[in-house]
Amino acid sequence: MKTIMIICDGMADRPHVDLGKKTPLERARTGNMDTLARMGETGILDPIAPGIRAGTDTSHLAILGYDPKKVYTGRGPLEAAGIGLEVAEGDIAIRCNFVTVDDNLIVKDRRAGRIDEGTKELTKAVNEISLDGADFIFKESVAYRAALVLRGQGLGHNVSESDPHVEGREVMAIAPLDNSQKSKKTADILNEFSKKSHEILKDHPINKNRVASGKPPANMLLLRGVGEYPRIEPFEKKYKLRSGCMATTGIVKGIAKILNMDVLEPVPEYDLRIEKVVRHMDDYDFIIVNIKEADEAAHDHRPEEKIKIIEKIDAALLPLIDFSKENYVALLCDHTTPSSLGDHSGDPVPLAICGPEIRTDGVTEFNERACTKGGINRINGTDLMPILMNLMNRAEKFGA
Amino acid sequence: MKTIMIICDGMADRPHVDLGKKTPLERARTGNMDTLARMGETGILDPIAPGIRAGTDTSHLAILGYDPKKVYTGRGPLEAAGIGLEVAEGDIAIRCNFVTVDDNLIVKDRRAGRIDEGTKELTKAVNEISLDGADFIFKESVAYRAALVLRGQGLGHNVSESDPHVEGREVMAIAPLDNSQKSKKTADILNEFSKKSHEILKDHPINKNRVASGKPPANMLLLRGVGEYPRIEPFEKKYKLRSGCMATTGIVKGIAKILNMDVLEPVPEYDLRIEKVVRHMDDYDFIIVNIKEADEAAHDHRPEEKIKIIEKIDAALLPLIDFSKENYVALLCDHTTPSSLGDHSGDPVPLAICGPEIRTDGVTEFNERACTKGGINRINGTDLMPILMNLMNRAEKFGA
Repeated sequence: MKTIMIICDGMADRPHVDLGKKTPLERARTGNMDTLARMGETGILDPIAPGIRAGTDTSHLAILGYDPKKVYTGRGPLEAAGIGLEVAEGDIAIRCNFVTVDDNLIVKDRRAGRIDEGTKELTKAVNEISLDGADFIFKESVAYRAALVLRGQGLGHNVSESDPHVEGREVMAIAPLDNSQKSKKTADILNEFSKKSHEILKDHPINKNRVASGKPPANMLLLRGVGEYPRIEPFEKKYKLRSGCMATTGIVKGIAKILNMDVLEPVPEYDLRIEKVVRHMDDYDFIIVNIKEADEAAHDHRPEEKIKIIEKIDAALLPLIDFSKENYVALLCDHTTPSSLGDHSGDPVPLAICGPEIRTDGVTEFNERACTKGGINRINGTDLMPILMNLMNRAEKFGA
Repeated sequence: MKTIMIICDGMADRPHVDLGKKTPLERARTGNMDTLARMGETGILDPIAPGIRAGTDTSHLAILGYDPKKVYTGRGPLEAAGIGLEVAEGDIAIRCNFVTVDDNLIVKDRRAGRIDEGTKELTKAVNEISLDGADFIFKESVAYRAALVLRGQGLGHNVSESDPHVEGREVMAIAPLDNSQKSKKTADILNEFSKKSHEILKDHPINKNRVASGKPPANMLLLRGVGEYPRIEPFEKKYKLRSGCMATTGIVKGIAKILNMDVLEPVPEYDLRIEKVVRHMDDYDFIIVNIKEADEAAHDHRPEEKIKIIEKIDAALLPLIDFSKENYVALLCDHTTPSSLGDHSGDPVPLAICGPEIRTDGVTEFNERACTKGGINRINGTDLMPILMNLMNRAEKFGA
């Protein structure tokens, strides 16, 4: 038996005043999700633990059975892995933004005018920097995003960021957050990198051209999300499942890469995407699919738009109903994103597990409130993989 | 106030296609269990944690309030204690099978034709072996089963088994599973014991007679379930309860013995057995009763037979309804054993707690799905004893 896990990113919400105190998921017509709930067992899931606000990264780690408190040190390593940087245990990885600063290092634009060309050339220049005490690799990602990997002896990750997080403030000095020599060494190197990034970028021809055409120059790098690449057991080794991940976001791809799962290219249309996943199940035992767009609508405070996206996602899920007759499907969200808040919250998310020997529970709708009545009751994110392994009859016995 | 805990071993199941997608417990007429559910509070319980497949041993430890991750190293110590071997902290205990091997040590019969006589004499011979580096005691149990206890300095338990687990394969060399000197020493001694068991048994008169009468000889011992006898707090000391355990299986008796609980002899008839337990409550504060047979029917893939057994167990529970008016009754399973699978699974089990001051919850049936609606919601095995201690008003306060 096999499992497809569908993560509707940020689809869970709170009752919204503009929706008559319903959530977008409650308001949306979701015939296929409701069928999965009716044919399956439902419940609610706290990605990390009750009330804890999860990121997409920590939540996906937990849902895949890795305790984020043990393996997560920051977003840097996931971002770096996601854009294809070869990272190894002990490396320090940092998310970077190309930004616009003035001569006093005041941040004028945290995204350098959402720069979307020329970053390859800028990256080449940055890679010519030399640093005392560590090797590094720097790589650009989509638009203004990039990642940096430091490799060397005696580096720590417990340091602050250079990103002031608001425009109009000065680039911050990176400081060690403990008394260790390792953290101090990393802070020193990153401050040097930060300074040199400005020196090498400020007069770069790409930036001269940008200024000439009235665009903000990408004349410095802001550093954030510093983390150490974790020692982590590959997914396939941990579960003995041939596994794949289909996602459009770099962070989820990054998680798949550090867990050594195959990264499957999504197609834009939801229905073709799900069909593709079902076809892939000839070659895989487990595929996790992250569908991002509902989260984005909630970040933009657009509950009506979120309803439309949810209905599109729902329509695409039809092939899973047939698939679940002989295999398992888990349908859930990675976290709640209230449209009122525009950011992740720590509310639990609905969960349905559907498959041949499931203890159905009389719940007939898939949403935040209906699923509280389900047979699974309330579990944590890290409980989900053991539950699925058990249902697939692939779990090892503890004891005799 | 006192508690009787009834463990219906492996009674929980999954919806079965031959039973119209009902479980045996859902299909069985269980008037007394349903009364206990209606008069009590219900919920579901994960013996270890959600999805984790528990053994009978790890599950009983958890349900009695001992974290199996901390105290369980293998089945050997429980088996040895169960058959009355005096084991002490630090001893290494091993489950043994009398088996039939050929001259090349290929296992021909893992149960030596289910030998049921003469093992006392064979045991005597085995106890004449001498080993370098450790004392040992060996004792026969029921049929082909036996246990070995090693006692000495510097012994570890982290070693492999000699049992190839299938017939037609060679007896395996026991190997240390880590780099410690302790594990190596134990592996060496057990390999010596394994070899000498064949030397001393192969020409034993009992075996010559077996061969002459066409029976497979019990001419070697297979070793498995190697574990170290744990440091464990006696049940009576931990809870200040005069406690007893009534069980037909060696493994549960073994757990009772290592916890220093009184082992009460069961009578074969369920109804007389429960009556006997209720009478014993004059002398005890807590008795755990394990009823094994539903598990066995599920291991044999016989859901219809399981229904019959469940109905017989149910009929015997009548005296508990009266008992629960002034005391507590906990009714649960130690794990799920799906009849479709024929082995333990990690699905949660139903739980009902009945007693004078219980918060009844409107659930009127005792089964896997009805109890998901109960007031207890979903708990872990190790939560149960604190809950019962609290209800009996015997719990110590944490704080002021």
